[in-house]
Amino acid sequence: MSSENNNSKYVPGLEGIIGAQTAISHVDGANGRLIYQGYVIADLAEEISFEEVAFLLWNGHLPNRAELGAVSAELAANRDLTPAATTALNGLPRETDPMDVLRSVVSVQGVEHRLARPTASLAIHATASFPTILATFYRRQLGLEPIRPRRDLGHAANYLYMMNGKEASPEIVHALNTYLVLLADHGMNASTFTARVIASTESDLISCLVGAIGALKGPAHGGAPSAVIEQLEQIGTAAKAEPWMRDARKRGVRFMGFGHRVYRVYDPRAKILKAMCERMNPTFYALASAVEETALTILHEEHPERPQSTNVEFYSAGVLQAIGLPKEYFTPTFAVSRVAGWSAHVLEQAAHNRIIRPQSEYIGPEPRKPVPLAERG
Amino acid sequence: MSSENNNSKYVPGLEGIIGAQTAISHVDGANGRLIYQGYVIADLAEEISFEEVAFLLWNGHLPNRAELGAVSAELAANRDLTPAATTALNGLPRETDPMDVLRSVVSVQGVEHRLARPTASLAIHATASFPTILATFYRRQLGLEPIRPRRDLGHAANYLYMMNGKEASPEIVHALNTYLVLLADHGMNASTFTARVIASTESDLISCLVGAIGALKGPAHGGAPSAVIEQLEQIGTAAKAEPWMRDARKRGVRFMGFGHRVYRVYDPRAKILKAMCERMNPTFYALASAVEETALTILHEEHPERPQSTNVEFYSAGVLQAIGLPKEYFTPTFAVSRVAGWSAHVLEQAAHNRIIRPQSEYIGPEPRKPVPLAERG
Repeated sequence: MSSENNNSKYVPGLEGIIGAQTAISHVDGANGRLIYQGYVIADLAEEISFEEVAFLLWNGHLPNRAELGAVSAELAANRDLTPAATTALNGLPRETDPMDVLRSVVSVQGVEHRLARPTASLAIHATASFPTILATFYRRQLGLEPIRPRRDLGHAANYLYMMNGKEASPEIVHALNTYLVLLADHGMNASTFTARVIASTESDLISCLVGAIGALKGPAHGGAPSAVIEQLEQIGTAAKAEPWMRDARKRGVRFMGFGHRVYRVYDPRAKILKAMCERMNPTFYALASAVEETALTILHEEHPERPQSTNVEFYSAGVLQAIGLPKEYFTPTFAVSRVAGWSAHVLEQAAHNRIIRPQSEYIGPEPRKPVPLAERG
Repeated sequence: MSSENNNSKYVPGLEGIIGAQTAISHVDGANGRLIYQGYVIADLAEEISFEEVAFLLWNGHLPNRAELGAVSAELAANRDLTPAATTALNGLPRETDPMDVLRSVVSVQGVEHRLARPTASLAIHATASFPTILATFYRRQLGLEPIRPRRDLGHAANYLYMMNGKEASPEIVHALNTYLVLLADHGMNASTFTARVIASTESDLISCLVGAIGALKGPAHGGAPSAVIEQLEQIGTAAKAEPWMRDARKRGVRFMGFGHRVYRVYDPRAKILKAMCERMNPTFYALASAVEETALTILHEEHPERPQSTNVEFYSAGVLQAIGLPKEYFTPTFAVSRVAGWSAHVLEQAAHNRIIRPQSEYIGPEPRKPVPLAERG
């Protein structure tokens, strides 16, 4: 049967359909470049702070000293959880998936009395709360008291301080900061699109972010980096990579950390994370680089027409492990970064809004009369 | 600048683009019909229970007696809140928007230890919990003890029993049941599309529903029925409708309860609700029908090419008021119904999945080198 209007053809996954116009970021797949508001990621990644990148995404330009001071201070001043959020967090079972913790406690932290339109200030408040939620729950899982956030520390440093109860080294803070800069936005991925669809109904910022967290949780989107570690653990050693992987392929096992829709050349974020991983986590790197080589060989044999496909999750796993984060917190830490991009997209959507409401194509039965309950077989 | 692939043109709001194929429902705008799995809404609305419609949406056929007994029993057996959900709910400020209560407590009620794929059983559990969350919070706002759900009551009857602490009359239960049947699904609206985008990442059912609640909250989608009441209160009497509305229009005020994208003739749900409203709520009806006539006259003068546009929210307000629900609970009660459709769409998306990831078109600046912080003006 027909769609509501007969002016288009169904494209599964909306592949190739433009879902939004945006100045926030651009995935230049042909040239292997990720661009944030006119800056190439390779020029930003190891040079600037997460705070600067978040400001850039929200405001369209890099902050000067005064602007950076202001945004950093507002982030630092809004790290505490509300009483309602603390109560909800402490009521959750200790084994709860940290992505569900984040989804739930971000929702509670953001409850409001009357609908508020998204603003840059609300984006800052939400972004500030993510590390506190995760660190507080992580310590609860370990049976430890929560650590209050410290205003004198930057976003990355304070997250690690709240997780571990002590300051991390400058190298580790720098590595986490670089990770947070690299993952902060990435064009029209599924979670960002979710946030924009919700924003398009004129809903509030928190509703958009909570939806985006739920989308990021999916293993086809952000929910797979811990699976990279698990697959490497199963493989065990570099020498076993080829036999394990050829056998796995026969059993239809998917290689974790490979595949993306957009890049025709090596993902620029994966390139930077690979170099960091080699420097910071040589044990992981020795195994992972052998697995990567084997995976790319096998994938090329199967589909020679497809480009190299190591994705951002593959070496992220090694970097986050070197930083000392437990693997259950890899995807939530992705959210700690991406909330900057999500909220920037919500602000942009709200400023130039039209409700996002595609058609559907009906493939059900033709209308017929219902049979009364007593006569149904 | 270009999109990631240059094979499409940006259509704001994805209007006319097919976002999904579905057998669950079809909005036949040209003929003013809403179809659920091959049944026209007018044939179902006052005839069958919400439980039957939910079963139909989830399974593709109307239940026989045994199936209806089983789904009703499973709904009734899963109405209680978890300890974590109760704790979170009781920690929320009393003035919290009930949509934010629903978003947060559905999230907490559904936390899991490991990712579970969506199933019909999980859809039943989630659907069962919505009325309990709302009724418990409503009574908390009034300073009253919560009422435990009763397994011997149907979905509509038990919701009203938990809200009010006493059984509603058969007429009132029937009216709420009809409302729940009418609103249970509606093609590819923004909240349903949100649920499907989240499902497409292989995330869990609750993440999809929580995102959908956030989208429904937006006043451009489900968040406006209480605004219908508020506008009628401002107008005051039928005699004042025309002068108030002509003046309002000069001030750029939007008429609440009018406008939709799909129907070319009168919305079939609005037609049924209008008749119910006339029967159940004559005071509301006298004012509302005068306001409707004036609104349609003015809108026709402004845009003679556009069809009549009374939407489902307009007479919903009068019916829900007659049922005795407070206006802050109109949109949440919409969610009590629509969760059946959302979860059906999630199951369908999960069964035939491809990640929903449109392109974006970059409209930001061309790449340039970042200026070091010390040199930024």
